[in-house]
Amino acid sequence: MNFSTIINKKKNNQELLESEINWLINNFVTELLPDYQMASFLMAVWFNGMTKQETYYLTKAMINSGTTFDLSDVKGPFADKHSTGGVGDKTSLIYAPLVAFFGVKVSKLSGRGLGQTGGTIDKLESCTGWNENISEQKFKEILNTVGMSIMGQSDNIVPADKKLYALRDVTGSVDSIPLIASSIMSKKLVLPADSIELDVKVGSGAFMKNIDQAELLAKTMIDIGKQFNRKVSVMLTNMDKPLGRAIGNAIEVKEAWETLNGNGPEDLKELCVTAASISLVSNNIFNDINEAQTELFKLLDSKKAAHLLKDFIEAQNGDFSKIIDYNNNFKTNHIIEIKAKSEGYVKFKSADSLGYLSMHLGAGRETKDDKIDFAAGIYLNKTSGEYVKENQTIMTLYTNINKVEEFKNEALEIIEITNKYNKEEVILKLILND
Amino acid sequence: MNFSTIINKKKNNQELLESEINWLINNFVTELLPDYQMASFLMAVWFNGMTKQETYYLTKAMINSGTTFDLSDVKGPFADKHSTGGVGDKTSLIYAPLVAFFGVKVSKLSGRGLGQTGGTIDKLESCTGWNENISEQKFKEILNTVGMSIMGQSDNIVPADKKLYALRDVTGSVDSIPLIASSIMSKKLVLPADSIELDVKVGSGAFMKNIDQAELLAKTMIDIGKQFNRKVSVMLTNMDKPLGRAIGNAIEVKEAWETLNGNGPEDLKELCVTAASISLVSNNIFNDINEAQTELFKLLDSKKAAHLLKDFIEAQNGDFSKIIDYNNNFKTNHIIEIKAKSEGYVKFKSADSLGYLSMHLGAGRETKDDKIDFAAGIYLNKTSGEYVKENQTIMTLYTNINKVEEFKNEALEIIEITNKYNKEEVILKLILND
Repeated sequence: MNFSTIINKKKNNQELLESEINWLINNFVTELLPDYQMASFLMAVWFNGMTKQETYYLTKAMINSGTTFDLSDVKGPFADKHSTGGVGDKTSLIYAPLVAFFGVKVSKLSGRGLGQTGGTIDKLESCTGWNENISEQKFKEILNTVGMSIMGQSDNIVPADKKLYALRDVTGSVDSIPLIASSIMSKKLVLPADSIELDVKVGSGAFMKNIDQAELLAKTMIDIGKQFNRKVSVMLTNMDKPLGRAIGNAIEVKEAWETLNGNGPEDLKELCVTAASISLVSNNIFNDINEAQTELFKLLDSKKAAHLLKDFIEAQNGDFSKIIDYNNNFKTNHIIEIKAKSEGYVKFKSADSLGYLSMHLGAGRETKDDKIDFAAGIYLNKTSGEYVKENQTIMTLYTNINKVEEFKNEALEIIEITNKYNKEEVILKLILND
Repeated sequence: MNFSTIINKKKNNQELLESEINWLINNFVTELLPDYQMASFLMAVWFNGMTKQETYYLTKAMINSGTTFDLSDVKGPFADKHSTGGVGDKTSLIYAPLVAFFGVKVSKLSGRGLGQTGGTIDKLESCTGWNENISEQKFKEILNTVGMSIMGQSDNIVPADKKLYALRDVTGSVDSIPLIASSIMSKKLVLPADSIELDVKVGSGAFMKNIDQAELLAKTMIDIGKQFNRKVSVMLTNMDKPLGRAIGNAIEVKEAWETLNGNGPEDLKELCVTAASISLVSNNIFNDINEAQTELFKLLDSKKAAHLLKDFIEAQNGDFSKIIDYNNNFKTNHIIEIKAKSEGYVKFKSADSLGYLSMHLGAGRETKDDKIDFAAGIYLNKTSGEYVKENQTIMTLYTNINKVEEFKNEALEIIEITNKYNKEEVILKLILND
C-alpha cells in the first residue's frame, strides 16, 4: 500500500478500502506518513467528501488509535450528550442529573475551554478539589452509586483526532462534514453509550453556517452511530444566542444548580429538558418526547434531581459548598453594571462576542497555558429579545482585572437596542434516529 | 496576509491577488510556509484550477525566486524549444542547428535525465570535456559566434519550481494543468527567447493522457507566453512512440549528427523540421510553415547546418571527434541482438518500457547519484509500425553489464509482433500562437 494510490483514488472519487484508511491513520499517528501528505489528502476529502462507508472506517480507525472503555460491569443503559460548543453552555450539568434520575447512566468525557467557549471541566473545577483524573474503576463506582460521572479527556483517547485536528486547523480542512462527523463521533464512541444526543450549533460563528449544512452533518453522525449500533439524535440549536444568563465558570455551575432547583432561565430549561427527553425516550423510559418533557419540567420544579449534581461533584472530591454559599466564595474586585443607553429590545452582536468578553474578564483562556479566574464572568440581567428601559442594567461583569473602562466599552459595543422584537428560537430542529 | 485567508479563497473559487500568490511563493521558498500548508494549497488548486491571471502571477513569482538572464548585448531574435520528455528525444540537437543556420539564436537551458527519460546535458557529456557550467559571458560569446548554446540548469534558476515540484510529486498534485504550465513556462521565461516551441507528449505514460487535456495545457502555456510578450507554439506529439532509432547517450548524439547530415529517420526529421519551421516563421524568417519545411528538408539533405552542432560542442570544450569516430570510441562488452520470433508488424509495449530498458543497460539513472555509461543504449533496427521477418533483428542492445539473458528477456517482453499495420503519427496536432 502507498500514499500515491490512495490520494489518486480520493482525487478521482473512488471509494477507499478499510485497509487503505487504516494504513493512512496508523502511519499518520506513528509519524511514518508526513504531515504534507496527510494535509493533501484532507484537502482532497474537503472537495470530494467521503462515502458513508469511508466515514465509518475513518471513525473506527481513529477510535482504535487509542484507549476505549469497557463499562460492562456497570448496569446500563448509558446515555451521553455532546455540544459543538456554545457560549454559556452548561447543559451537561443539568441534563445529566435529569437523565440519571431515571436510572439511565450518564458516562461522559469532557474537555477544557479555549478561546470564547468554556469547557465543562473548567466549570467543575470551580468546586475546589474536583478531580477530572479519576481511574476507570472510580468512574464505574460513581456511575453505580450516583448514576453520572464526568472524566477529563486524556491524551490516550483518540490521539489520531488530536493530531488530525491540529493539522486540519492550519491547512484549511476544518469545515468538512465527514471530517467533523468522524472527529466528534470517534470521541463519543470510546464510551459504550446506548444513546448519544448531539447539540449542533448553527449560525454565522459556528462551523455550520446554515441549517442545510448542519442537517447534513447531523445525518452523517446518525449514520456513523448506526454502524456502531448506537442511537444518535441531533438537536440543531441557535449559535447566535448565549444559553441562560450566566457566562463564566462558578457562575455557570450556580445557574445549573438553580435550574435544577426550579429556578432556571427558560431557554436553558427548554434545551436541557429536550435533550434529556430524547435520551429517556431512546432508552425506553418514556414512550414519547412530549410525555418525557412534561415529566422533566415537573422534575425541575420538584428539585428532586438537584442532589445528583452535588453528589457527583462531591464523589469526585469537589467542594460543592462553594456553590451553595456562592456570594462569599466568588467575590471579585470589580462588579461592573452595564446600563441601557436607550429603551428597547436587547440584541447582542453575537454569542461569541460575549464569550470573548468573558474570556477577557478572566473566565477563559486565550492560550492553552492561561489560568482561569473561576469568579470572573458575566450575568445577563437582560438577555437577547428582552425589553429594557433607559438606564436599566443589561449585564453585570465580574472581574479581578483592573481594566474597568475597557470592559465597559467592550460590553457596550456588543449591545444593540432595537425597537423590533425578534424571537430567537433556542432549538431550531430535532433530527431523531429513526 | 495569512495562509488561512488564501486557502479559503482558493477553496471557494475566488481569484487570488498577485500579492497573495507572491506571499505564498516567497514564504514557501524561504521555508516560512510549512510544506503541509503548501501541499494543502496545491491540492485545492488541483480541484479548482487557477484563472489565467493567477497562473500568470504564479509563473512570475516562480521566475522571480531565482536568477534571470539578460542577453541584450547579443543580437537576436532568440528561439527556444522544450519537450515534456520522451524516449529517444534528441530533437534539440537537430532543431538548434537548423534554426541557428538562419540567424535565429537558440539559447537553451537543459537538464539531466532521471528514470526512463534521458537528458540533453547527459547526452552532450558523451563528448568528453563538454561543459554545461559556462559563465553567462561565455554563453553570450558562443551565441554570438556559433548561434546556439546550451547551459545546465543551475540551482539558482527558478528554485521555487524545484521545491514545488518535489512537494507535488509526493502529495498527488503533479497532474494539474496550471501547475504544469507554470512550472514549464517559468523555466523557459528566465531566458529572453522571442519564440518558444513546446513539444507536449500525449499518451498513457505522459502527464497528458489525452488530446483534450494536452490542448488545454497548450493553451494555458500560450496564454502565459502572451502575458510575458512571447510567442509560444505547441506541438502535441505521440508519447507512445520512441523518437528515431537510437536510445541512449552517445548513440543519440550520433543519430542527431547523421540526421543533420541527411541521413536521419523519418519521424525524427519530421519533428525537428516542424519545430524549426515554427520558430523560423515566428521570427519572420519564412512566411509560412510549408515554405519553411521545404527549405529545412533541403537544408538537412545539403548537410550545411551540421557543422553548427560540432562547433557548439567544441565551443563548450567537448571532444566531437568521439562522435565522428563513434565505433572506436563507444565499444561495449556486450552487443545483444534481439531477433523476431515471428513475422509481422513491430509494436512496442510503450516508449517508456524502452526507456527503462535503456536505463537498465547503463544509459540512464535510477537515482540521482547513478553514473551513466555513455556507450550503453539501444538501436532499433526495426521500429514501431515496421515489418519484420522471422529471425530478423528488431533491436540491438549495447551494455557493459553482465546480465545478457535478463536484458534479452526484458527486450522480448517489450516487443509485440502483430499482423495489423497501425500507422503511429509523430505529430498529433499543432497549436500555434495566433
